Amino acid sequence: MKISVVYHSGYGHTAEQAKAVLRGVQSVSGAEALLIPVAEIEQHWDNLEQSAAIIFGSPTYMGSVSAEFKKFMDASSKVWFTRKWQDKLAAGFTNSASQNGDKQNTLTTLAVFAAQHGMIWASLGLPPGNHDSKGSANDLNRLGSALGAMAQSNADQGTESGPSPSDLKTAEYLGQRVATLAARFVRR
Amino acid sequence: MKISVVYHSGYGHTAEQAKAVLRGVQSVSGAEALLIPVAEIEQHWDNLEQSAAIIFGSPTYMGSVSAEFKKFMDASSKVWFTRKWQDKLAAGFTNSASQNGDKQNTLTTLAVFAAQHGMIWASLGLPPGNHDSKGSANDLNRLGSALGAMAQSNADQGTESGPSPSDLKTAEYLGQRVATLAARFVRR
Amino acid sequence: MKISVVYHSGYGHTAEQAKAVLRGVQSVSGAEALLIPVAEIEQHWDNLEQSAAIIFGSPTYMGSVSAEFKKFMDASSKVWFTRKWQDKLAAGFTNSASQNGDKQNTLTTLAVFAAQHGMIWASLGLPPGNHDSKGSANDLNRLGSALGAMAQSNADQGTESGPSPSDLKTAEYLGQRVATLAARFVRR
Amino acid sequence: MKISVVYHSGYGHTAEQAKAVLRGVQSVSGAEALLIPVAEIEQHWDNLEQSAAIIFGSPTYMGSVSAEFKKFMDASSKVWFTRKWQDKLAAGFTNSASQNGDKQNTLTTLAVFAAQHGMIWASLGLPPGNHDSKGSANDLNRLGSALGAMAQSNADQGTESGPSPSDLKTAEYLGQRVATLAARFVRR
Repeated sequence: MKISVVYHSGYGHTAEQAKAVLRGVQSVSGAEALLIPVAEIEQHWDNLEQSAAIIFGSPTYMGSVSAEFKKFMDASSKVWFTRKWQDKLAAGFTNSASQNGDKQNTLTTLAVFAAQHGMIWASLGLPPGNHDSKGSANDLNRLGSALGAMAQSNADQGTESGPSPSDLKTAEYLGQRVATLAARFVRR
Repeated sequence: MKISVVYHSGYGHTAEQAKAVLRGVQSVSGAEALLIPVAEIEQHWDNLEQSAAIIFGSPTYMGSVSAEFKKFMDASSKVWFTRKWQDKLAAGFTNSASQNGDKQNTLTTLAVFAAQHGMIWASLGLPPGNHDSKGSANDLNRLGSALGAMAQSNADQGTESGPSPSDLKTAEYLGQRVATLAARFVRR
Repeated sequence: MKISVVYHSGYGHTAEQAKAVLRGVQSVSGAEALLIPVAEIEQHWDNLEQSAAIIFGSPTYMGSVSAEFKKFMDASSKVWFTRKWQDKLAAGFTNSASQNGDKQNTLTTLAVFAAQHGMIWASLGLPPGNHDSKGSANDLNRLGSALGAMAQSNADQGTESGPSPSDLKTAEYLGQRVATLAARFVRR
Repeated sequence: MKISVVYHSGYGHTAEQAKAVLRGVQSVSGAEALLIPVAEIEQHWDNLEQSAAIIFGSPTYMGSVSAEFKKFMDASSKVWFTRKWQDKLAAGFTNSASQNGDKQNTLTTLAVFAAQHGMIWASLGLPPGNHDSKGSANDLNRLGSALGAMAQSNADQGTESGPSPSDLKTAEYLGQRVATLAARFVRR
């Protein structure tokens, strides 16, 4: 059961998030995890076609997916035409410097994109963390996202400072969840 | 395998669409279909909890779900708290008088709502119809939606005139698709 | 120059945010500020018609505006029909327990609603706070919103604990901004 | 009073829509209209800075703005940092082959983008056409959009067949509206 993580990262933060998603996938027995930067997409279209699930990840730039990630989305119109991703599982994650920073519009855009391909969208599946007096920024899903995994990394710091451990654990949870759901979904 | 269709309809058009979704569900062997108007929701929370999939339908009023449907969404916060819909399949449909009329915001709102419950969103799964010189308003998915099923009904006419047969067939397709996916997903 | 703040609040947090918006409006010379809870909307339709700007506020419940606020939105369809809010300024704010919690979908829904009325949407107009190593939760726009003002209040605490002073200052900024823009826009 | 129309077009349809928006701008006395394809953006940043309003146009590809248009959006982060577009008017338009085809997500993405720049979003300002028994595809705003102007062009036909005259008139209306609002807004 192949599961692919397709992502773009401008400064390395989203790449860290992608690697955390990958670790989550790998923690599920029987899942073969592939990490695909969009710059290398041309050699991976067959892998995507063979995947039971594809997890999409992009930084949020100016309120939506990065241009580099959008280029991959647009290039997938050939696959769209032949419906080769129909009924596959999909999920998404995003990182930006702002706490909120319009990350939800990125996740919505990824979910709409997956829907155009006829895919099935796995939500993050976690209740919000850090939303009451007992919560903290160390909670899983501390940003309170529902459609996918969100991470925040300071604009002036490198990957040694962000995403935070809790955001990376949240990403890992998403990878594990998608692999678990895919196993259940593909078994026939 | 119980599959529930929860809907609100102000003037009957969305109710016709809901019935079409129900017919689609019923066409799949082994699926027990329930049609639940939001006005009767109080007696159906257990049914929703026992359902493998819940399909949400609302007219688009002023750019989003109707207040009546939103009341149901808000009331579901009790279920949200106990995560009883976690990992269930979800899908959505909407009707409005305009061709587009911000119906996509309604479907996005339903998908976000389902994601808050930890559900898995089944897209419509149809390529767009009526989008080239060979197309017509009789095509399946003539409005070209991806997240769910859309229908259009004239503002000054009753259910004898709308939704159109193609919109009802599109709704039926959604019901059949969700039941088929649910059967595959729940079988273990 | 009348400027109205129409809001719903379930537990008081959004009401505090609304009052902060109102203070911002009142800080602008020549602005007459009105605070209108949706429960009293029936006696205020004329006030809205006479307003140069209307600022909409709702808690985010289950990923969108509350049912009570949606009821007001749906009731405004009469005004929509006669285009009485055409070209007025609009803006929005929302509060929820989660840091993010799908608040962006609420603001998008408010912006689409205003667009249906032919209104002109004033963004928050603040760069994100708390997004680099020098930032903190005390920054203006600490949640990093763009379409409108966001606030966060813990789920298990009353209005003595939230929204935070920075969120209230952000709301105040929005009120001041809208009044300033309205003054510039209505002067002929 | 400079008003700029920044657009991308893959096959010429959105370019026709952009030209119609331009004609609308030019119909307003005192408005100097600029048509800027994103491929030539590098020589136009000063023009954008001097504009009272910027109208954004992109085809809808895979559910959002095209990668080429997104590249322009991302490149504008330098301007974003210095807040040079703060308080300018903004508006948007989009074309795709589907009737709906997730065009609303493109307009939402443009509105969020404008909000990040602190701009003020001018909605289309037209009630929906073709939404009752007296309507037809010849109506202004036949697709029933609110946030901006939508157009539909068949996937297998060139610009001789689409966008339709009504979609071009709708685009022209948007241009005229933005120029009129800008005149009112910049006069002090």
